[in-house]
Amino acid sequence: MLIEFSIIPIGIGSSLSAHIAEVLKIVDASGLPYKATPMGTVVEGEWDELLKLIKKCHKTAMKSGDRVVTTISIDDRKGKRNRIEEKVRSVEKKIGKALKK
Amino acid sequence: MLIEFSIIPIGIGSSLSAHIAEVLKIVDASGLPYKATPMGTVVEGEWDELLKLIKKCHKTAMKSGDRVVTTISIDDRKGKRNRIEEKVRSVEKKIGKALKK
Amino acid sequence: MLIEFSIIPIGIGSSLSAHIAEVLKIVDASGLPYKATPMGTVVEGEWDELLKLIKKCHKTAMKSGDRVVTTISIDDRKGKRNRIEEKVRSVEKKIGKALKK
Amino acid sequence: MLIEFSIIPIGIGSSLSAHIAEVLKIVDASGLPYKATPMGTVVEGEWDELLKLIKKCHKTAMKSGDRVVTTISIDDRKGKRNRIEEKVRSVEKKIGKALKK
Repeated sequence: MLIEFSIIPIGIGSSLSAHIAEVLKIVDASGLPYKATPMGTVVEGEWDELLKLIKKCHKTAMKSGDRVVTTISIDDRKGKRNRIEEKVRSVEKKIGKALKK
Repeated sequence: MLIEFSIIPIGIGSSLSAHIAEVLKIVDASGLPYKATPMGTVVEGEWDELLKLIKKCHKTAMKSGDRVVTTISIDDRKGKRNRIEEKVRSVEKKIGKALKK
Repeated sequence: MLIEFSIIPIGIGSSLSAHIAEVLKIVDASGLPYKATPMGTVVEGEWDELLKLIKKCHKTAMKSGDRVVTTISIDDRKGKRNRIEEKVRSVEKKIGKALKK
Repeated sequence: MLIEFSIIPIGIGSSLSAHIAEVLKIVDASGLPYKATPMGTVVEGEWDELLKLIKKCHKTAMKSGDRVVTTISIDDRKGKRNRIEEKVRSVEKKIGKALKK
């Protein structure tokens, strides 16, 4: 399944890149296929490994402040693999044109 | 922490209430404090019990179709309890007026 | 259509109730049917009036800080009215039991 | 401001790529800076032009079915430009390593 998540520490200033960096170090070290986007991080895997990863990221963010808002979107589809690459590719085939990625 | 989640089975018709009913039966039986809203379900608890509950709901929805989109929002704040009641109450105090709930 | 939205000012402290109060005053004054939930505000109406309302709330929040994260979920279904009450009621009928609201 | 959105037609089958293709044609033709990700589309611009674009995409999706769920996340930060490129770059500088994108 595909999961996108975004972790927002509240009340520690309006620049969050140092905190997002800590989160992305954890994701990068996980070995799971991922993509860092301007609005979140997309990771592909199974429920338990993905939620364990996001818990670790969320708990890390909680260390630096009193409040964290985390949003998660899950797209789970039976019998499909490598959707982190194939979903956009499948749309490009339908359009007949490469999209900006 | 507070969590709101919404589970959408894709491709099994545009009426989802029978599927949402299965999800809310599970939430209601969990014994955790919750509120059913027109756009999702809010539950209060700790990370592991909440994510275990949502996993159960998501897996139940996957039984009836090929694809499920689940969205989760987490609001985690240190040292606060009974936020499922207190958050709106605290806003009402600031406004000096009861809100529609 | 039904819309749920949540407005989070970033970097102005971890208590947000005063800012949420400003947002809910605007919603309450709009005359549109709404429900304040622990994780956001649900409003029913048409696209233009709803998005105009949320723009006003978002711009108000931007006055008090440098950064605001706003999330919006829209559930649009043809030919259905009063869904702000009927969606949960329809699930309750399927379960045969009143839910916590 | 940056906006990510995702449009899910409900009840027209579990493959959505043909519908997503219609949405991305509209985004691509808008001339606004965007990125197609596996979980949504990120676009940069001002409130009115972005919400007008998403309205057009949502209304197009409503033509092919009875129900559409659209989710939108907005990250609005004063005085920052080209954040569609700079946000991830800023995190990469903090980590000292290129991320997967």
